[in-house]
Amino acid sequence: MYDKLSSRYPAAGRRLRLGFVGGGCGSLVAQWHANGARLSGRWDIVAGALSSDPETARQSGKDWLLAEERSYSDFAVMASEEAARPDGIDAVAICTPNFLHRPVAEAFMAAGIDIVCDKPVAMTREDCAAMAEMAEETGVVFAVTYPYAYHPMVVQAACMIADGAIGPVRQVMVEYAQDGRAGAFDPSIKQLAWRLDPAKGGRTATTGDIGTHAVHLMEFVTGQRIAKLRADFHVCGGEKPMEDTSFINFRLENGAPGVMWLSQAAIGNTTGLRLRVYGEKGGIEWDHEMPEHLHVNMRNAPRQTITRGAGAGMHPLAERMIRLPRGHGEALSDAWANLYTEAAIAIEARRDGHALEEGLLNLPMLAEGARGVDFFHAAADSNDSGGAWTSL
Amino acid sequence: MYDKLSSRYPAAGRRLRLGFVGGGCGSLVAQWHANGARLSGRWDIVAGALSSDPETARQSGKDWLLAEERSYSDFAVMASEEAARPDGIDAVAICTPNFLHRPVAEAFMAAGIDIVCDKPVAMTREDCAAMAEMAEETGVVFAVTYPYAYHPMVVQAACMIADGAIGPVRQVMVEYAQDGRAGAFDPSIKQLAWRLDPAKGGRTATTGDIGTHAVHLMEFVTGQRIAKLRADFHVCGGEKPMEDTSFINFRLENGAPGVMWLSQAAIGNTTGLRLRVYGEKGGIEWDHEMPEHLHVNMRNAPRQTITRGAGAGMHPLAERMIRLPRGHGEALSDAWANLYTEAAIAIEARRDGHALEEGLLNLPMLAEGARGVDFFHAAADSNDSGGAWTSL
Amino acid sequence: MYDKLSSRYPAAGRRLRLGFVGGGCGSLVAQWHANGARLSGRWDIVAGALSSDPETARQSGKDWLLAEERSYSDFAVMASEEAARPDGIDAVAICTPNFLHRPVAEAFMAAGIDIVCDKPVAMTREDCAAMAEMAEETGVVFAVTYPYAYHPMVVQAACMIADGAIGPVRQVMVEYAQDGRAGAFDPSIKQLAWRLDPAKGGRTATTGDIGTHAVHLMEFVTGQRIAKLRADFHVCGGEKPMEDTSFINFRLENGAPGVMWLSQAAIGNTTGLRLRVYGEKGGIEWDHEMPEHLHVNMRNAPRQTITRGAGAGMHPLAERMIRLPRGHGEALSDAWANLYTEAAIAIEARRDGHALEEGLLNLPMLAEGARGVDFFHAAADSNDSGGAWTSL
Amino acid sequence: MYDKLSSRYPAAGRRLRLGFVGGGCGSLVAQWHANGARLSGRWDIVAGALSSDPETARQSGKDWLLAEERSYSDFAVMASEEAARPDGIDAVAICTPNFLHRPVAEAFMAAGIDIVCDKPVAMTREDCAAMAEMAEETGVVFAVTYPYAYHPMVVQAACMIADGAIGPVRQVMVEYAQDGRAGAFDPSIKQLAWRLDPAKGGRTATTGDIGTHAVHLMEFVTGQRIAKLRADFHVCGGEKPMEDTSFINFRLENGAPGVMWLSQAAIGNTTGLRLRVYGEKGGIEWDHEMPEHLHVNMRNAPRQTITRGAGAGMHPLAERMIRLPRGHGEALSDAWANLYTEAAIAIEARRDGHALEEGLLNLPMLAEGARGVDFFHAAADSNDSGGAWTSL
Repeated sequence: MYDKLSSRYPAAGRRLRLGFVGGGCGSLVAQWHANGARLSGRWDIVAGALSSDPETARQSGKDWLLAEERSYSDFAVMASEEAARPDGIDAVAICTPNFLHRPVAEAFMAAGIDIVCDKPVAMTREDCAAMAEMAEETGVVFAVTYPYAYHPMVVQAACMIADGAIGPVRQVMVEYAQDGRAGAFDPSIKQLAWRLDPAKGGRTATTGDIGTHAVHLMEFVTGQRIAKLRADFHVCGGEKPMEDTSFINFRLENGAPGVMWLSQAAIGNTTGLRLRVYGEKGGIEWDHEMPEHLHVNMRNAPRQTITRGAGAGMHPLAERMIRLPRGHGEALSDAWANLYTEAAIAIEARRDGHALEEGLLNLPMLAEGARGVDFFHAAADSNDSGGAWTSL
Repeated sequence: MYDKLSSRYPAAGRRLRLGFVGGGCGSLVAQWHANGARLSGRWDIVAGALSSDPETARQSGKDWLLAEERSYSDFAVMASEEAARPDGIDAVAICTPNFLHRPVAEAFMAAGIDIVCDKPVAMTREDCAAMAEMAEETGVVFAVTYPYAYHPMVVQAACMIADGAIGPVRQVMVEYAQDGRAGAFDPSIKQLAWRLDPAKGGRTATTGDIGTHAVHLMEFVTGQRIAKLRADFHVCGGEKPMEDTSFINFRLENGAPGVMWLSQAAIGNTTGLRLRVYGEKGGIEWDHEMPEHLHVNMRNAPRQTITRGAGAGMHPLAERMIRLPRGHGEALSDAWANLYTEAAIAIEARRDGHALEEGLLNLPMLAEGARGVDFFHAAADSNDSGGAWTSL
Repeated sequence: MYDKLSSRYPAAGRRLRLGFVGGGCGSLVAQWHANGARLSGRWDIVAGALSSDPETARQSGKDWLLAEERSYSDFAVMASEEAARPDGIDAVAICTPNFLHRPVAEAFMAAGIDIVCDKPVAMTREDCAAMAEMAEETGVVFAVTYPYAYHPMVVQAACMIADGAIGPVRQVMVEYAQDGRAGAFDPSIKQLAWRLDPAKGGRTATTGDIGTHAVHLMEFVTGQRIAKLRADFHVCGGEKPMEDTSFINFRLENGAPGVMWLSQAAIGNTTGLRLRVYGEKGGIEWDHEMPEHLHVNMRNAPRQTITRGAGAGMHPLAERMIRLPRGHGEALSDAWANLYTEAAIAIEARRDGHALEEGLLNLPMLAEGARGVDFFHAAADSNDSGGAWTSL
Repeated sequence: MYDKLSSRYPAAGRRLRLGFVGGGCGSLVAQWHANGARLSGRWDIVAGALSSDPETARQSGKDWLLAEERSYSDFAVMASEEAARPDGIDAVAICTPNFLHRPVAEAFMAAGIDIVCDKPVAMTREDCAAMAEMAEETGVVFAVTYPYAYHPMVVQAACMIADGAIGPVRQVMVEYAQDGRAGAFDPSIKQLAWRLDPAKGGRTATTGDIGTHAVHLMEFVTGQRIAKLRADFHVCGGEKPMEDTSFINFRLENGAPGVMWLSQAAIGNTTGLRLRVYGEKGGIEWDHEMPEHLHVNMRNAPRQTITRGAGAGMHPLAERMIRLPRGHGEALSDAWANLYTEAAIAIEARRDGHALEEGLLNLPMLAEGARGVDFFHAAADSNDSGGAWTSL
């Protein structure tokens, strides 16, 4: 069974070379990227500008076991030097604070290096447009990291809804509740400081930070876009300069209503990402805290729980993402590994001139990243206007 | 332990006599009232106008083991005849469709008989005002049945929040999701037909039917009123003349925001009443599907689960409602029994001239019932105006 | 729907009269019986010898709202006086310490009064034989209270297994874990003192007390008897004179093996009664802490959860026990109410000369009670012999 | 926080080189090892004898992106050639059927290459003794893979019990239930065929296969050894030549009793590894299906759930194993990564001459592997003797 599944993705022709921008001491984001790249078995991490501070960069590079000459502190230098090496990186993982995503991406695109960029992919819609233009010109792969869509049971949900299992979608509840910002703002916490500085993190805080995940997950699973929304931002935890909680009402393209609740001040929640979609014939529920299970409920029938694993109701497109047998738990790093597997397939194909089957990959590209930027601006526009319905 | 607790409520001086209006074949509501009254051990059910159809009334009375002469089909006759009997009923449980609550209550108040009335307590604010005036004039006890507030762990949550356990409330999520109306409207289902007829059920459907429960639960636990709300009504299940789903945003008196989701078209949910309250210091979560447990989470501490039972963190006001030892499951009928216990205490005191300790009972009275009527009208006003903020 | 179900049991012809022996201040057992009788709506509790101490009996009778002349302190007097009254009790609920079950039952059988007796039904196999003989001579109904078999989802499990849903049973895990005896023995706790005194509670403590429930539940659901067992008794909590934990291995009649774990010293468990039965084609799991759900797992299929409520996979014999719609939680008192409903049907039929349809009731009679006595003696025999296989 | 934690293990001086024996198409075991090695970031997988069939070996080596000349089909050749290379492997992961563990290990030990071997580590006690002797002579690191002990919350449990949090252990329930062998034996399933052939898998099937995990987990967490056991083996699923289910009673060194249930024919279970340990003061429960949580229950206190993440009750020794922040799910591959991190630390230290702090690592060595072999032989001896108590 297992070999059959893995054959559904093309086998790797070679191990690709990955560099990082960002990821110095204390970075959480780079850790996830690195886990995904490593676990996928398709990447070697060989270069990095892990910090703009030379000493931190040097020390972090050593911790990451990078060769000394490939541990940079200036991303522009890294882009040009790596581009010049015969064994230069194939792709760069961009894990910096948000305001640097665009300049870093531009430097590497200019050097012809493919991109795997964290979200939100940029600060403004203008950034996105400029990056899109450059991506088109240079022809690079520009992947954006929405890892939750790489849990097999999320793909299962998307496939089932696409196949009509629950009928047309009629309403949606999506929530992403955490408690990491329940306290008052402490600028000495480096990972937090830039996120609550609009010049570095963007126009919103929580809304862009975790809302982009929630929107992507919801749109991916329902197969529908938010047509319009209205938003209220609040500070529900300790004092801080930007919102830690957003309440968002929305309508999908087909008119179905939904609610999104985003909070990083809901004490007792850690990564409380939960999606509930109800259609004419049934409902599905997925909870990130138990990612291996998809609850599928049909009218007047026993509740069903589909558990990750071959057979037993799994859709082939979800099955191919399975890395371990049913019950041998997968979690977040496995989702990242699936993402980095698809990124490797796309990037190897471009660089080594392979053709790829149409529709093979789910990989979210820059357009999906720009969607997230649209989202947090629309939400901020609505909030600024006292909660008016705003198109998205 | 057990006797100590039960002594916290005054012992019954006698078994009270209860009559029912409504409850004929197929009534769900009367079943709950009867369960609560029976399980409390403080009531005998001795009379009823269980249906306005004489044959149904007769047959239902027989099923209920009522004496033939106390099985009525006309509630006004019942009120006057029972008032005239030396062994007449002490109180009447009103379990009719909503539009009859007021006339039935007025008939029994006029006869000096105490009232236990289902919710929503009336059709309009004017009804409520008129009933309140009459209740004041006649001096009767007018209890309204919000049973969820009688689960010991709900009282525990209310007491903990009142005692400051989680600090000031900063945000609230409350949801009541069912799927009984996921299908298209079928007027042959009697219990549904009146609920979707504005002349019989009221201006709203789902909002008044289950929203009144959600509001009372939330206000009871947080100790705060909704100051304003905005609402969107939708039909998310099969075609029907009134809303089956409401999305409501609100602000509490202290400014804290919240969201309420009400749906009877969310397939896979049965009685999905779930309350999550987050304060400055901690959060509490209660889920009606596991009513015996209260989840209490404090910042940077292990999650706690307080389970119904004496000791182990229970508040005395919650402890006295315990009917069985920890782990020996209580559920909805036990909550109703607590409600009917408090109703019996209040009614026996009035009728037999006992004084009651100040603040002894949590029993929701007509004012709480009127609050629910206010709520669904405010929600409907907001919905009619396209979701404008509306005071409550 | 609801009326259809309730019609499956014959309607009550009258409300029966119930008396209690045992149930004075602090009794847990009588509370459960009373809850069941009350909630069933088929019984009036009108007499009692609630304690052998006259003052406790008098005060308890007052608490229970018994008429003064029907509140006895001597059960023999109660039996004869009630038998002599035209409105005397139809049945007696025996809730005394175990050693009194036989003498009390004999007194009431002699008076022609039907019996509802707690478990274990007697101290010895000889007691059981003598009681059975007298029951046969007098023709009384002699019901024994195993309430867990009255949860609708337990009946559902039994019906599904009987219908072959999971194929022949191949192995069983049953556990009943509590923590009420985790501490050292404190003889001042009255409900505990007699249970740890072999002269009053019987040859075993935990094994007879909760093991009888576990055995009945398992045999009822699997439809098979234990053929032989071996047992080890332990004191795993604080010091005490009798076992608080039993580990029992068994073989069913068809040879299938199983394990039973009984403990009242497993801290963190309250009423942790859990049954898992695995057959050739599937498995079922039921957990008393979530009694409304039955988990049914078939090979290579999604897991299913059947939730109490009409339709959606419920077996008719389980459906008729439903007291509230799906999702409106039932728990232990509802199970007791089902038990007391069946007891009322059987007792009314005998006393009022109605014929009953063959196989209408699941009501466990004295033979099932004697089975429990056999069980704890077999377990004790095995333990005494160092864990030898012992027939049952 | 994160850097503080990771500093508790020594940083890697270099990336180590790992080879595999076993792991050809369809191997599950090698997948887990490879995941752990990759995710740890401390290993490069550079060589393998992935199958003894040359064509399968060649194709598998290609899939794994091994250099052609380092993809072997004969493990002895691999051992000698790798030992001769300047860039030869530091360690070999042995993922073959059980009967090959010893010869493979001997070949690599003879070549001075360190060992990471799957369990059960050998077929017989004699094998273990011979391997231990050779390990001592050659001085190699001989690690054995019990990955469940590398979940941070398992280490948390072990630390808490060692620190006396629940008092002396008084009873234990451990179960490992799966359903992969619920069907009849199908010799065409390669991964199953050798496991049910005593010449290749060993004297027991399920008992050695999953029982060794259960024993190690239980002994690791309780800090105590099984002193004696008695066992019954059964075939509870479809027909097959060896047991698919074992019921084992045991006594720990301190006399505390316990039960172990092992089954691969319990339909509905996938990796149902669950440990419950009860002490004088409290109990802990851990369930592999929710590995991020440890339930800790103290007498007469609310239940606590400690969730993986820094602070909030975590023990430092558990905290250092954390790879992602609380709520960002870790699962089985993360546990394997912890195991391969410790293996790398030990192996790098030996090969590169670093000293290691005393007691730094939890890494199970050959002696723990031999313990597992002892266990399944003791269980088989007991079963053969009709369930007699057998020392271990």
